[in-house]
Amino acid sequence: MLLLIPGPVQTRPETRAAMAQDIAPWDNDFRPTYASIRERVRVLAGGVEGMHATLPLQGCGHFMMEAAIRTFVPAGGKLLIPQNGAYADRAVRLATEAGRVVVALPGPDTRPVTAEEIAAALAADPAISHVAMIHNETGSGIVNDPEVIGPAVRAAGRRLILDSVSAFGALPVNLADHPEIDALIFTSGKCLEGLPGIGFAVARIDSVTAAAGNAGSWAFDLSDVYAHALRAGWGSFRFTPPVQSLAAFSVALDLHEREGGQPARLARYRENARAMYDGVRALGMAPYLDWAHQGPVIVTVHQPADPAFELQPFVDALKRRGVLISNFWNTQAPTFRVGCIGAVTPEDIRGAVAAIDGALRELGVTRREASGNDAPRQKVSARDDD
Amino acid sequence: MLLLIPGPVQTRPETRAAMAQDIAPWDNDFRPTYASIRERVRVLAGGVEGMHATLPLQGCGHFMMEAAIRTFVPAGGKLLIPQNGAYADRAVRLATEAGRVVVALPGPDTRPVTAEEIAAALAADPAISHVAMIHNETGSGIVNDPEVIGPAVRAAGRRLILDSVSAFGALPVNLADHPEIDALIFTSGKCLEGLPGIGFAVARIDSVTAAAGNAGSWAFDLSDVYAHALRAGWGSFRFTPPVQSLAAFSVALDLHEREGGQPARLARYRENARAMYDGVRALGMAPYLDWAHQGPVIVTVHQPADPAFELQPFVDALKRRGVLISNFWNTQAPTFRVGCIGAVTPEDIRGAVAAIDGALRELGVTRREASGNDAPRQKVSARDDD
Repeated sequence: MLLLIPGPVQTRPETRAAMAQDIAPWDNDFRPTYASIRERVRVLAGGVEGMHATLPLQGCGHFMMEAAIRTFVPAGGKLLIPQNGAYADRAVRLATEAGRVVVALPGPDTRPVTAEEIAAALAADPAISHVAMIHNETGSGIVNDPEVIGPAVRAAGRRLILDSVSAFGALPVNLADHPEIDALIFTSGKCLEGLPGIGFAVARIDSVTAAAGNAGSWAFDLSDVYAHALRAGWGSFRFTPPVQSLAAFSVALDLHEREGGQPARLARYRENARAMYDGVRALGMAPYLDWAHQGPVIVTVHQPADPAFELQPFVDALKRRGVLISNFWNTQAPTFRVGCIGAVTPEDIRGAVAAIDGALRELGVTRREASGNDAPRQKVSARDDD
Repeated sequence: MLLLIPGPVQTRPETRAAMAQDIAPWDNDFRPTYASIRERVRVLAGGVEGMHATLPLQGCGHFMMEAAIRTFVPAGGKLLIPQNGAYADRAVRLATEAGRVVVALPGPDTRPVTAEEIAAALAADPAISHVAMIHNETGSGIVNDPEVIGPAVRAAGRRLILDSVSAFGALPVNLADHPEIDALIFTSGKCLEGLPGIGFAVARIDSVTAAAGNAGSWAFDLSDVYAHALRAGWGSFRFTPPVQSLAAFSVALDLHEREGGQPARLARYRENARAMYDGVRALGMAPYLDWAHQGPVIVTVHQPADPAFELQPFVDALKRRGVLISNFWNTQAPTFRVGCIGAVTPEDIRGAVAAIDGALRELGVTRREASGNDAPRQKVSARDDD
């Protein structure tokens, strides 16, 4: 089975083989592996020694995002969230439930937020201390670019929390060039091609230290994760981690490096996305995004107009052909989405395009252009098993 | 290597083999596995259909305990915590940082809290709505018995949150007999012999429904986990889980059942604990607890008086003999601790006792009686990598 989903991704056999072992997380033989993961991740993010630290947390990207917002934005504090996709919707909700005041900057999920929009929103409200932005919006496939937005945040004297959950390892970020970023967030099971279970923040040490006391949650206090590392050592995980995911992640980092690091991974994913984008167009379907806004992580495609098309039967028909895609969608119009990340090659993608064609034929879907159905985006509530 | 630690435990090969696969958590082929885990866990806990629900969370026991306290005790609400061990210390801290008011009931870590102590503390403060109690205190090895404490909580008209992280699956709890329990908490990597990564609450549906709005955290809101299950189905996990741990946990539940369920598992662990307790005494060492208070999960042993004894070298010498024990201790006097849970037999334990003897000889430890060192318990801060 080929997993074409935006995480948990298809992994390499040697990565998942590392899951099948019993490990004591605090064992002196394991601590160097964990400490080295933290160091390698900091370097990958362009973090500066002594200025940035890798702060992991058990769980998922959502947990890490809540932890970062609780840690850096005090209770009652105000943050701006460019809301142009389903994962931004979630950030709005989690920040609000955590008692932070969200200023939402709504936008279509078919293009990135612009520096001008951010600058205007920040200028309009001096009480906003932070911007929390989704780097790659896994709902539609657009990329909100920190190279564009970071300078606007910096110029306004505010701070940035960058949710790079589904981008880091493929899309470039160099923290050394982004003093405005308090934390860059990602997880083990996306573009770095590990297994799910661990969230990471690469954070500014000065910010995380100054944020002590903000979180209102011991579990989600990144300043305590940092203090714990100082006290117990960089090889010591705070509370029992899904340690097998850590062991596998170490192998995944080896493979990332061997492939040629971030540039090589981005190049492969771009080729994957291109092959899928061109492939579905050749089959008569309409990608959801203009190519100019198409990121490398996920290609979303308008559901065909033909009433013979229904998502779950289509997913099932694809699965019978060895390809697994998401059985839900997260865009403002009905789509299906195909992940282009993981241990997947352009050759695999071309095979998947052929499988899509076969599935559509089996279902008798002949009118393949966009349905034009403008049903509103399904609410985040129905999609949070993703 | 034989892991003799109170989790993550030694697992069976067939359990950890289930970790080495890629899985899409929302895949229709996986959903029944997850839904069935929830149902089996409810039944194991003696939960009543329609009255109790299994509410999982990615992460560790600490996360689940914070989630339960946030969910059931509103911000500013008051809870009683019998504080007779290191994990109770943590509960005090996590509840306090979450903005709940903790009334601590301190006690020695060498005996369980009594019903009289609980009754008196509750009578003294009518504002206390909940008791949060550690079932098996993994610091020392004592058991706070819900059969004893539950009725006292019930009689006082209060509610109980039972942290059974290191006990559930071995120590008996039958929720049908305990209407006062709002939530029973455990994790995948302890007495049920799965791999770490998932926390579980088996909770009263009426309580969890009434608690909507309490948590002040979307991630840790168990009422939202319940609402999500109603909406998205019992086979749908809220946010990406460490799905390999779920797959392995399903195998672990099969093996638990095949062994004869909770009574059989308890019997084996008791035999393990007895073999370790008697074994170290035969070697001239002093167990930390009276046998009357010795639980089946962990045996703690006073560090020998001989200055030749140091914990890390002892742990290393044991490891060279194929036995891994914790390299820290969590009791009021210096000890070492040996886990008796996991896929471990009394025969394994007798082998470990021989290894302990060999390690002590290698280190030249001849005076093996208790050191009498009454150094205070190491602060929780140094031990939270457990």
